[in-house]
Amino acid sequence: MTAGQELHELVAELYPICRSITGDGVRQTLEIVGHEIDLEVHEVPSGTQVFDWTVPREWNVRDAWVADDSGRRVIDFQASNLHLMSYSVPVRAWMPLAELKRRLYTLPEYPDWVPYRTSYYAEGWGFCASQRLVDGLPDGEYEVCVDATLADGHLTYGEHLVQGQTDEEVLVSCHVCHPSLANDNCSGIAVASRLARLLAERRLRYHYRFLFIPGTIGSITWLARNEERVGRIRHGLVLACVGDPGLLTYKRSRRGDAEVDRVVDFTPYGYDERQFCSPGFDLPVGCLTRSSYADYPQYHTSADDLDLVRPEHLQDTLEACLEVVEVLEANRSYVNLNPKCEPQLGKRGLYGAIGGRSDTQQRQMAMLWVLNLADGGHSLLDVAERAGLAFGLVAEAAAALEGAGLLAIARPAAVDSPAAGAG
Amino acid sequence: MTAGQELHELVAELYPICRSITGDGVRQTLEIVGHEIDLEVHEVPSGTQVFDWTVPREWNVRDAWVADDSGRRVIDFQASNLHLMSYSVPVRAWMPLAELKRRLYTLPEYPDWVPYRTSYYAEGWGFCASQRLVDGLPDGEYEVCVDATLADGHLTYGEHLVQGQTDEEVLVSCHVCHPSLANDNCSGIAVASRLARLLAERRLRYHYRFLFIPGTIGSITWLARNEERVGRIRHGLVLACVGDPGLLTYKRSRRGDAEVDRVVDFTPYGYDERQFCSPGFDLPVGCLTRSSYADYPQYHTSADDLDLVRPEHLQDTLEACLEVVEVLEANRSYVNLNPKCEPQLGKRGLYGAIGGRSDTQQRQMAMLWVLNLADGGHSLLDVAERAGLAFGLVAEAAAALEGAGLLAIARPAAVDSPAAGAG
Amino acid sequence: MTAGQELHELVAELYPICRSITGDGVRQTLEIVGHEIDLEVHEVPSGTQVFDWTVPREWNVRDAWVADDSGRRVIDFQASNLHLMSYSVPVRAWMPLAELKRRLYTLPEYPDWVPYRTSYYAEGWGFCASQRLVDGLPDGEYEVCVDATLADGHLTYGEHLVQGQTDEEVLVSCHVCHPSLANDNCSGIAVASRLARLLAERRLRYHYRFLFIPGTIGSITWLARNEERVGRIRHGLVLACVGDPGLLTYKRSRRGDAEVDRVVDFTPYGYDERQFCSPGFDLPVGCLTRSSYADYPQYHTSADDLDLVRPEHLQDTLEACLEVVEVLEANRSYVNLNPKCEPQLGKRGLYGAIGGRSDTQQRQMAMLWVLNLADGGHSLLDVAERAGLAFGLVAEAAAALEGAGLLAIARPAAVDSPAAGAG
Repeated sequence: MTAGQELHELVAELYPICRSITGDGVRQTLEIVGHEIDLEVHEVPSGTQVFDWTVPREWNVRDAWVADDSGRRVIDFQASNLHLMSYSVPVRAWMPLAELKRRLYTLPEYPDWVPYRTSYYAEGWGFCASQRLVDGLPDGEYEVCVDATLADGHLTYGEHLVQGQTDEEVLVSCHVCHPSLANDNCSGIAVASRLARLLAERRLRYHYRFLFIPGTIGSITWLARNEERVGRIRHGLVLACVGDPGLLTYKRSRRGDAEVDRVVDFTPYGYDERQFCSPGFDLPVGCLTRSSYADYPQYHTSADDLDLVRPEHLQDTLEACLEVVEVLEANRSYVNLNPKCEPQLGKRGLYGAIGGRSDTQQRQMAMLWVLNLADGGHSLLDVAERAGLAFGLVAEAAAALEGAGLLAIARPAAVDSPAAGAG
Repeated sequence: MTAGQELHELVAELYPICRSITGDGVRQTLEIVGHEIDLEVHEVPSGTQVFDWTVPREWNVRDAWVADDSGRRVIDFQASNLHLMSYSVPVRAWMPLAELKRRLYTLPEYPDWVPYRTSYYAEGWGFCASQRLVDGLPDGEYEVCVDATLADGHLTYGEHLVQGQTDEEVLVSCHVCHPSLANDNCSGIAVASRLARLLAERRLRYHYRFLFIPGTIGSITWLARNEERVGRIRHGLVLACVGDPGLLTYKRSRRGDAEVDRVVDFTPYGYDERQFCSPGFDLPVGCLTRSSYADYPQYHTSADDLDLVRPEHLQDTLEACLEVVEVLEANRSYVNLNPKCEPQLGKRGLYGAIGGRSDTQQRQMAMLWVLNLADGGHSLLDVAERAGLAFGLVAEAAAALEGAGLLAIARPAAVDSPAAGAG
Repeated sequence: MTAGQELHELVAELYPICRSITGDGVRQTLEIVGHEIDLEVHEVPSGTQVFDWTVPREWNVRDAWVADDSGRRVIDFQASNLHLMSYSVPVRAWMPLAELKRRLYTLPEYPDWVPYRTSYYAEGWGFCASQRLVDGLPDGEYEVCVDATLADGHLTYGEHLVQGQTDEEVLVSCHVCHPSLANDNCSGIAVASRLARLLAERRLRYHYRFLFIPGTIGSITWLARNEERVGRIRHGLVLACVGDPGLLTYKRSRRGDAEVDRVVDFTPYGYDERQFCSPGFDLPVGCLTRSSYADYPQYHTSADDLDLVRPEHLQDTLEACLEVVEVLEANRSYVNLNPKCEPQLGKRGLYGAIGGRSDTQQRQMAMLWVLNLADGGHSLLDVAERAGLAFGLVAEAAAALEGAGLLAIARPAAVDSPAAGAG
């Protein structure tokens, strides 16, 4: 079985669970993740103040349906948890079709799909269904039932740390609050879990802190409880919607010039990078997605299912994450210990013995580039970008030169995180 | 009647007057402007030293013509004031055609058009005519007459102030020294007058100072007499050639990065922005035109007439000016009073209650952008540019957030005008 | 005879000599250059330590060949010095074809061309030949002979100084170590020699120091012996491959923003600019070539011959060098002595007397640009770039304005060369 197929199995296991920002669905999800990695589960009481927000009451559903006057369930939570608007309050009532329709959400432009709707912070209830189903409902009286509890309880999130050698951290975060939506975000949970497991096998420079948290309120809660820790975060990545056929997309952090920030522009809407990148924290956290949120029609609908997410795309994302780790781990600035003229590479066995050939061999080019820019002010990533060479090649050249005593690691620049003194 | 039609009527009223850098034509022009707005008229004596220049003698024309030996006027100032080179000294003489031709200016490439020529600072005289007319003149003796006075008098300019609430100013300047040229610059005079009248009806942050001045010597004279005032100028706009069908063009100030400077490059030639932007003042003054000077063939010819200037283009320029005012008035930097994580917009009624929808509504996006960049270092214009959103939408979002107590206006940055300490 | 034809004759005279990084070929080359200009020849003993390198033993060849068993020379150094790998150690031996082939270098992709190979720092020997010749060799025994000496001696280089008026220097360097390769680098030697001769006829601001040195080890040796001098170098140019039909290409210095650095990107491989631009010196030295090294197929092969190099291209390069000198000599920053508003150019005879014309005459535009940017912070090159005007026009305008007392030369900025305090 390929890594991609294993990831898809994990997505399929997570898919049926009714998750929301609180409740047993989150706990079941974290339990499954716990089979992959050792997870520390946190429970934060309803009512806890977290910055401008308050941890909400906990929501759990036993059953929910709409039935016609013959008692037949025409909309049924048991068939798909998307049918119930998330955080619907308990209700049991009869009503005519016209009144019912004011509580029904559909997607007229995709008549066969069921939308995903939430009402976390405004008390209410509602059902979601396909336009075709609603259009086919005959006039008459209907009975609605939401057998749910919305009561003081807890907000639940999971945390996992892969140990590194320095006291600096890389944050990897994914949200665990969406119900049966495969790409958004069973895919992110699966890739993050597997990434954590793979990193455990490596000797690492950074600690890697993995967060499995409900969106928005979860990251806000984590930040409120960990303000003293954010100064250690050097890089961060939010993983979401990473299993669809779209191309990999990286969204820059607010800073826009952080190491992880060299692909696309930052926009303030999106996933939890909004909280990590709010101006009071300004952490170097970007977001890795495939199809960007809301850019694919299946987004937040029943069509975001196990067919949309494919093993090969999950695997591609995992490999991209590992590549990012590779660069973050190896990226450093060096100083050339022999800065006046080039050192003689040949006498150290680092240069081809026969000259006169076109001598454009990339390995030698990479060494010359590293030597030239090793002034403490250019990282290997800078060198790779300026030289137009693969990062791996440049890192390998630097290692060879360091091994030959020609380079030394530059003293790290002063910590520049504005959050370092926060809290 | 549309605003454009009203502007065109004003242009038509200004068009026939024989203006130059001094003289009664300027006074008549300012009198017409005075019907629109309350104008303070200044008279500066000939011989007054203004920086490197001297206010010239005043020039006034009663009549001017070239007649053939039968006494028939073949070139006649009464038919068009363009026929006489501006600042021609008095003359009355007979001469053969060959000698006369050395005093005649034509446009061979546009044989039916009469060029506009001046000789302000080199004493002389001349006539302008169409190439076709000159080609048709039979050999023979001609009589020339310039019945003009060039004598000590005054340089005249007008000034109008629309009051604002702070002590900072926006300068709006146009030149009033061109004779029967409709686009250059009856159009600028008309738009500036109307803009001043419209601003009087508004509650404004800035004072708006309108100058109606002869080109070059007028702006130099105004600057020489108002050095102590230039430190208050925050923004400025020169209006010229604003009624032709060309697209609106904005020329940056010398600084190149002033607020009003985000469209095109600065070039040192042009209108009075050259003086406002000379390195000793370096004011943030740009220039708004439609067809840029000398970029349309009718420029400085008799074809720059009332047909070239159209009501719809005048109106479009006026609306653009009002939009610029809108942005200048509303552009500020804010600080997010809740910088750690996003504030909860929903509990303040600023966010749609039902979540899960694609949630890309521009208004909510604008609020998230403003919150994210409200660190005192980004103006609303910065936010609009980075977000790719309309300025109005961003300003409205900021107002809503300020109303909810989530934003405060940042303390203004220190005045950076190098002219602040001048004079 | 055109300048280009004269340069081509000089290239043809240099072409047959067997040059290497040391030896009599370099001395003969410098002797020919000595007919053009007065050359100071330096001899540096083998074994001298120069930074990380050691001056190698001197190599001289009397004869070298491969003969078949009938005694017929099948590969002959006398026919072309490219046939012998540079720095081959002496050998005389019989061997079968298979063993011989391990010592033969060919270019399979260009079966008629002979490659150029060296083995300066790894002791060995070898021959270079066309693939077609090697393919035609019948089996059998062959005799090889390298009648050469590799022994303590000297590294030879030449230096020539054209005097200027300040104590600042421009470095012009070319390599003299390649055997019969016309473009790389007889062309560079010829253009540098002629440039030096032409500059001697001029009154110059800078000293121009010309180096005729073996590649890499030569520039390293020169830098090691002249560390106290590098602080005076304001600009530098390496000339190589300047006679082929490729377009002129300029490679920026490491700094990337030096005055001579406004055309293309810097890459760390190439000619001796690598040494001058190593981080310990970081001199503002770029490299002027036509086809960039290794970018033309004839590079380092027998096809880099007297047909590849054309008189018109040599002349074009020489003219480009003179233009660079023109700009370096004239480029300065000025301060406007009349910074408030424009000065009145007309009363100083610097402005056309008749106004109203389109007035876009470039000369007047250049004067307005220079006046506007003459704030001590913009050089004439900055002005020319921003104005989109020819440098010569801008320099002429500045001279006219300086002559009229409107400009003064700005005090030069502090020396910014990090090498100023080196050594």
